[in-house]
Amino acid sequence: MIRSENRAAHELRTVSFEIGVAPHAAGSVLVAFGNTRVICAAMVEDSVPRWMKEQGVTGGWITAEYSMLPYSTLSRKPRDITKGRPDGRGTEIQRLIGRSLRAAVDLEALGSRTLWVDCDVLQADGGTRTAAITGATVAMHVACQRLLVEGKVKRLPMRQRVAAVSVGIVAGEVLVDLDYAEDKEASVDLNLVLTEAGEFVEVQGSGEEATFSADQLAAMLDAGRAGVAELLDLQAAALGI
Amino acid sequence: MIRSENRAAHELRTVSFEIGVAPHAAGSVLVAFGNTRVICAAMVEDSVPRWMKEQGVTGGWITAEYSMLPYSTLSRKPRDITKGRPDGRGTEIQRLIGRSLRAAVDLEALGSRTLWVDCDVLQADGGTRTAAITGATVAMHVACQRLLVEGKVKRLPMRQRVAAVSVGIVAGEVLVDLDYAEDKEASVDLNLVLTEAGEFVEVQGSGEEATFSADQLAAMLDAGRAGVAELLDLQAAALGI
Amino acid sequence: MIRSENRAAHELRTVSFEIGVAPHAAGSVLVAFGNTRVICAAMVEDSVPRWMKEQGVTGGWITAEYSMLPYSTLSRKPRDITKGRPDGRGTEIQRLIGRSLRAAVDLEALGSRTLWVDCDVLQADGGTRTAAITGATVAMHVACQRLLVEGKVKRLPMRQRVAAVSVGIVAGEVLVDLDYAEDKEASVDLNLVLTEAGEFVEVQGSGEEATFSADQLAAMLDAGRAGVAELLDLQAAALGI
Amino acid sequence: MIRSENRAAHELRTVSFEIGVAPHAAGSVLVAFGNTRVICAAMVEDSVPRWMKEQGVTGGWITAEYSMLPYSTLSRKPRDITKGRPDGRGTEIQRLIGRSLRAAVDLEALGSRTLWVDCDVLQADGGTRTAAITGATVAMHVACQRLLVEGKVKRLPMRQRVAAVSVGIVAGEVLVDLDYAEDKEASVDLNLVLTEAGEFVEVQGSGEEATFSADQLAAMLDAGRAGVAELLDLQAAALGI
Amino acid sequence: MIRSENRAAHELRTVSFEIGVAPHAAGSVLVAFGNTRVICAAMVEDSVPRWMKEQGVTGGWITAEYSMLPYSTLSRKPRDITKGRPDGRGTEIQRLIGRSLRAAVDLEALGSRTLWVDCDVLQADGGTRTAAITGATVAMHVACQRLLVEGKVKRLPMRQRVAAVSVGIVAGEVLVDLDYAEDKEASVDLNLVLTEAGEFVEVQGSGEEATFSADQLAAMLDAGRAGVAELLDLQAAALGI
Amino acid sequence: MIRSENRAAHELRTVSFEIGVAPHAAGSVLVAFGNTRVICAAMVEDSVPRWMKEQGVTGGWITAEYSMLPYSTLSRKPRDITKGRPDGRGTEIQRLIGRSLRAAVDLEALGSRTLWVDCDVLQADGGTRTAAITGATVAMHVACQRLLVEGKVKRLPMRQRVAAVSVGIVAGEVLVDLDYAEDKEASVDLNLVLTEAGEFVEVQGSGEEATFSADQLAAMLDAGRAGVAELLDLQAAALGI
Repeated sequence: MIRSENRAAHELRTVSFEIGVAPHAAGSVLVAFGNTRVICAAMVEDSVPRWMKEQGVTGGWITAEYSMLPYSTLSRKPRDITKGRPDGRGTEIQRLIGRSLRAAVDLEALGSRTLWVDCDVLQADGGTRTAAITGATVAMHVACQRLLVEGKVKRLPMRQRVAAVSVGIVAGEVLVDLDYAEDKEASVDLNLVLTEAGEFVEVQGSGEEATFSADQLAAMLDAGRAGVAELLDLQAAALGI
Repeated sequence: MIRSENRAAHELRTVSFEIGVAPHAAGSVLVAFGNTRVICAAMVEDSVPRWMKEQGVTGGWITAEYSMLPYSTLSRKPRDITKGRPDGRGTEIQRLIGRSLRAAVDLEALGSRTLWVDCDVLQADGGTRTAAITGATVAMHVACQRLLVEGKVKRLPMRQRVAAVSVGIVAGEVLVDLDYAEDKEASVDLNLVLTEAGEFVEVQGSGEEATFSADQLAAMLDAGRAGVAELLDLQAAALGI
Repeated sequence: MIRSENRAAHELRTVSFEIGVAPHAAGSVLVAFGNTRVICAAMVEDSVPRWMKEQGVTGGWITAEYSMLPYSTLSRKPRDITKGRPDGRGTEIQRLIGRSLRAAVDLEALGSRTLWVDCDVLQADGGTRTAAITGATVAMHVACQRLLVEGKVKRLPMRQRVAAVSVGIVAGEVLVDLDYAEDKEASVDLNLVLTEAGEFVEVQGSGEEATFSADQLAAMLDAGRAGVAELLDLQAAALGI
Repeated sequence: MIRSENRAAHELRTVSFEIGVAPHAAGSVLVAFGNTRVICAAMVEDSVPRWMKEQGVTGGWITAEYSMLPYSTLSRKPRDITKGRPDGRGTEIQRLIGRSLRAAVDLEALGSRTLWVDCDVLQADGGTRTAAITGATVAMHVACQRLLVEGKVKRLPMRQRVAAVSVGIVAGEVLVDLDYAEDKEASVDLNLVLTEAGEFVEVQGSGEEATFSADQLAAMLDAGRAGVAELLDLQAAALGI
Repeated sequence: MIRSENRAAHELRTVSFEIGVAPHAAGSVLVAFGNTRVICAAMVEDSVPRWMKEQGVTGGWITAEYSMLPYSTLSRKPRDITKGRPDGRGTEIQRLIGRSLRAAVDLEALGSRTLWVDCDVLQADGGTRTAAITGATVAMHVACQRLLVEGKVKRLPMRQRVAAVSVGIVAGEVLVDLDYAEDKEASVDLNLVLTEAGEFVEVQGSGEEATFSADQLAAMLDAGRAGVAELLDLQAAALGI
Repeated sequence: MIRSENRAAHELRTVSFEIGVAPHAAGSVLVAFGNTRVICAAMVEDSVPRWMKEQGVTGGWITAEYSMLPYSTLSRKPRDITKGRPDGRGTEIQRLIGRSLRAAVDLEALGSRTLWVDCDVLQADGGTRTAAITGATVAMHVACQRLLVEGKVKRLPMRQRVAAVSVGIVAGEVLVDLDYAEDKEASVDLNLVLTEAGEFVEVQGSGEEATFSADQLAAMLDAGRAGVAELLDLQAAALGI
C-alpha cells in the first residue's frame, strides 16, 4: 500500500498553518494535515467559569469546543442541534483538546479570564483531533501574544507549546499521521500529545475490537514522539519564533 | 459619514467567491461581501423528506441551514447546542434562505433528491443573510453542474440564479449593502432577493422600532434591484458562465 | 372563484374583537378575521430582560409569543413540547409580531417593564399572523390603558397603533386578506404591517417557488395599505377611541 | 368565610358548557366552573399508538394533553417549550385526565383510532383538572356522535359519561368545588372522578404537609359524589340527551 | 390463584430494610417488598429552592426523585436522558413521594436545608412507589438523626413516620401489596400513604378502564390501613426505635 | 502517606464481585474496588442498531452506559435528565467501556443481538471506570453463559475477558488502583484495559495541567499490567472458571 503524498511510514502529511483566518478571534488559524483541515480560533472572555469562583480557584481557564461542519465528511453530518444532543465522539474529543491545551497555558499568568478555543473541522481526512490540538495551540499562542501586547498580562501566559499526532498499525507496520483510508484499516489507533520538552500530556490508545502488545505500544510511542517534535518545529516556524 | 471602502451610497462592497473551499461537498464557496464571509456548501442526498413521500409530492427538495461560527462575531457567540435550542434569528434566516433557493432550482429536474445547503458565517460584518443567499446559489449551481456531468440528471436542475442584497436608510439616505456599523445606525432594514429576470423572490423590510414611508420603500426597492443585478453578474463571472 | 363571504378582491373578511376574553391578563382580545380566530393577551412583568440591564438600555420591552393550539388546524398539530423543539414557522412569526408591536409602543413611557404578548391561534383559516398582530395591538392598548389608570405610568405608553393584512396574487389577481384556500393557491404571499400614519413597519413578501414583478409588488402594497387602514378603524371602534 | 357566588359548602359554582368553540375539532367545548374556564377539544386520528400495534392490542386509544395558557394565571406562566421540559404538575394532571376518559369510552367500538383530547386552561381559579375532565367528556361525546353520524362506527363508542369535582377541608368544614382562594387554605385536596352509575374512576386525595382521618375522607367522598352527580346532569343537559 | 410467598389476601410480602447501602448519603436503605427492591438515599443540601427565598418561606424542603434503573424491568427500560425527556409515570410517582415525605418531616425544625431523597428501583415486581415511600422514610429518618447527632438541628426534624401500601381488587377479592402479576390482573389500583397516627397522607385510587364502588373503596381502605400499620412497625424495628 | 487498607504502592484494594444483584438482567454483578462500588448489568435485546442493518454489518453489538447515582458522590450529583443533557465525563467513560467490552466479545458468535451493559456507580471512591469495566466483563460473561445454556448461541460468545486498573504518580511514586484522595493528588492519571493474554485494549493517560516522561509512562504501564493480571484472576474465581 502506497501512502498518500508518497510518504514513508513515519512521515507526516504536508502541514500548513494559515494564521488569521477568523479576524474577530484574538488568534485563529486554518491548520491542514494533508486534506484534513480545521479552523481553530481562540477568543478571550473576561470572566471564569462559575465553579472556579465557587471553589475559590484563582487564575484563568481554557474551554475547548470541537465540531465537524456538516460538509466536512463524505456523507453530510447532521448538526448536533438538529439531533438535539451533543455528539458522543465530539464530546470525547473536545475534552481531550481542553485537557491538552490547559497543559500548554500558564493559567495563573492568564489572569481571571477564559480562553475559548473552538475547533471546527472544514474537511475530515483522518487525524482531526490531532490537527485540532496542533492548530489550537497556535491560535492560542497568537491570542496570548495579543494579550501581552495589549498590556493585559505581564508575561506571555504560555508554559510550553503542545502538538499531537496519530499513530496506528496497518498490516503490521507502524504508521504516523494516518489519513482516513489508513485509519479504517488500522488495528490500533493511538493519539499522542507532547510538549516542547518531549513530555507526554495525553496518550490515548485504543484497539477497537482488536488488541496490541507492549512492544507494539513502545514502537508506536517512539514513532509518535518524533512526529510531534516535527510538528512543534512547524508551529514555531509559522509563529515566527 | 464615510462608507467602508470609500464607496458611494448605492455601491456594493468588494465581493469575491472562492469556489471549492469544502471539497467533500458537491459544490462549495467562500463568499465575501467586504468583511462578511460565509462558507456555503451544497451536498446531495439521494432521498427526500418524509412529508414529500407521505403527500405524494414528486421531484426534489432544498433544505438550507444557517449558523454563525462562535468566532464570527466580536463577542463569542455560544453554539446552539450549548444553549440546547436553535437560535430564533438563525431559524428565521435559514427559512428565508431555503425559500429563496427553492425559487432558483428546478425541483422536478433535480429528481428524488435533497440538496442540503449549509451556510456557516466565518466573519460577520453585516449582510450575512444576503451574502449567504448569494453564495449558496453559487454552491448549488456547482453541485447541479456536477449532477449533470455525472449523468444523474438529464438537464441542469437550475431554473435561474438568485442573489440578495440589503438596503437601509441611514441619516435619511438610502444605502446599499450595509456593513455592521451602518446596520446599527439604520432606521430600516430591507433584504431583497431577486432572480436573473429581475423578478422578486423575497422582500423583507423591517423598521425595528421605526417606520418607513411608501416613497422610501420604493427608493429602497430600486436601489436594491440594481445591487442584486450586479451581484448576479459577479456570480456568473465566478461560475465562468 | 368566489371568495368566502362573497367579498370583492380587496375586501376584508368580517373582523371582530371580543375584548376581555382572558381576565387574568392586563389586556386581552379574541380577534376574528372570518374563521381565523386568535386569542391575544398582554401581561405586565415588572422587570426587563437581562440583556437590557447588562447593556444599560433604559425603558421597557415587548416580548411576543405565537402558538397554534393543537385543534386550530384541520389535522391536529402536535404541541412544540411534544416535539421537544420550537416550531420554525412559529419562531419566524413571533419574531415578526414582536418587532411590529415594538413599533407601536413608547418603550420609554412603559418604564422598566416587560409586556408579554401571547397570541394563541384557536382556529386557523389563513392570515393567523396578521390577525395576531392586529389583535395583539388591541390587547396591548387595553393593558397600557390599565397601567395609566392605575397610575403606574404618566402617559399612555402607546406611540401609535399598528395593524396587519395579507395580500396575495391568485390567478393573476391581487387579493386582500386571503383565507386558507386562497393562500394555498396564491403565487405570492405578502404580509404588511402599517401604522395609523400609513407608514410601513414590516413588509414580508415571499414567492415560495415563484416570483413577482415590481409592478405586482406595487399593486399589492397599494391594496394592502387600504386594507390595513380599514383594520385600524375597526380597532379604534372596538377600543371606543 | 363567605364562599364565592354566596354558595353553600356543598354547592357547585355556576357551570356552563359552550359547545363548538373550536370548529376544526370533532368535538369541542369551553367549560366553566365559575371563573375557571378550560377549552376542551377532541380530534380523531385514524391510527393508534405504536405500542398497541407492537403488542397486538385491538381497539382504539385516548390520549389527553393538559396545558395552562400563559395568561390563565395571575402571574404569567411561561410555556413548557420555553423551559424546554414538560411541567411536572401538568404531566400528572394529563395522566389523570387520560385515565378518566378511557373509563368513559368503549375503546373496542372506537375502532383503530386515537382520540386526542386537549385541555387548555384559559382562566385558572381552582379546579382546573376537574373542569377539564368534565368538559373533555362532553367534547369527546360530541366527537363520538360525529363518528356515528358519519358512519365510521356502528354504535356510539361511549360506555358512560364521567365527571369530576374537587373536595377539600377548610377550617374543619368539607367544601365542594373549591376556588383558588379556598384551595390555598384547604388542608386536604381530594379530586373525584365518577361515572353515571355512581362508580368511582379515580380518587386522588392529598394532604400536602397535612393529614386527614378516615372519617374526614368518608365525609369528603360523600359530598363529592353528590357534586359529581349534579355535574353529570349538567353535561346531559348541555348535550341535549 | 395462589399468591407469591403463599400469603393470604391481606398479607404483606416479606419486607426488609438494609440500612447504609449508600454510605455517601446521610441516610440510605435498600428496601425490599418481596422481589421489589428500591435503593432510597437522603442527602442534605445547605440551601433551599429559589422559590422559597423569593416567597420568603422559612424552614426547609424535601425534594424526591424516582427512577427505574434500566435493568429493573424484564425488558430493559431506556434511561430518561436517552429519550431526552422525563418519563411521565416517573414524574407522577416522584411528586407523590415528595408530598408524602413532606408530611413526615418537620420542615421548620429542618432549618434552611433541602433533603434530597432519591429512590432508584433496582428490581421491579409491583409496588415500587409504595416500597419507595416506605424506604425513603427510613432513609430520611436516619439522615435526620445524623443532623441531630451532629448538632445541626436542635430536635429531630421528623413529625411522624409514613409508610405506603398498594391495594387492589383481583377476581373480586381485595388484595394487599400486589406483585406485578397481580397488578396486571387488578381492576383497581389503590395506593395509600398513612402516618403513625393512622391518618391519611395520600389516597390514590385508579380504575384504569374500570370502575369501583363506594363499598369496594371502603373495603380497600380498611385493608390498606392495616397493611400500612404493619409496615410502620417494621420500619421502627429496622430503625431500632 | 499511608495508603487506604495499608496497602503497598502496587497493591490493589480489596476486590469483590457479588453476582446476581439485579435478577431481571441476564447477568449482573455488584463489583467493589475498596469503597468504589458499581452495579453492572447485562441485558440481551434481540435486535441490532439501525446502522448495522443499513451498512449490512453482521453479528451483534455491545452498547455500554455509565452513570453515577446521585448519592454516589460526597455532594449530591444531579441527574443528567435534570440538567437536560448527558454529562461530558460520563459520555467519555461509557465510550471507553463500550470499546473495551467489544474487545472481549465474539460479536459474530453473539448473533444478531445487542448486549446492553449498564454500569451505575453506587459509591465513588476513585477508579469507577476501571471497576465498571472489570465488573461489566463479569456481568457480560454471565449473560453469555445464559445464552449458551438456553441454546440461543452455539458457542460462548466471549473471545477473552478484559479488566482495567488505574495507575498514577503521587509524590513521584507510581501507585496502582488509586482511591479518590490519591487521585486528587496524582500528577498523572492512566487507565489501562488489558486482556487475559496480556495485550492492551485501551491506554488512556492524561496529565491534567501536568506532564509525564517516557520513563514514567513505561513504569506505569508495567505496574498496571500486573494489577490487571491480578484482577483477571479474581474475575475467574468469582465466575468459578
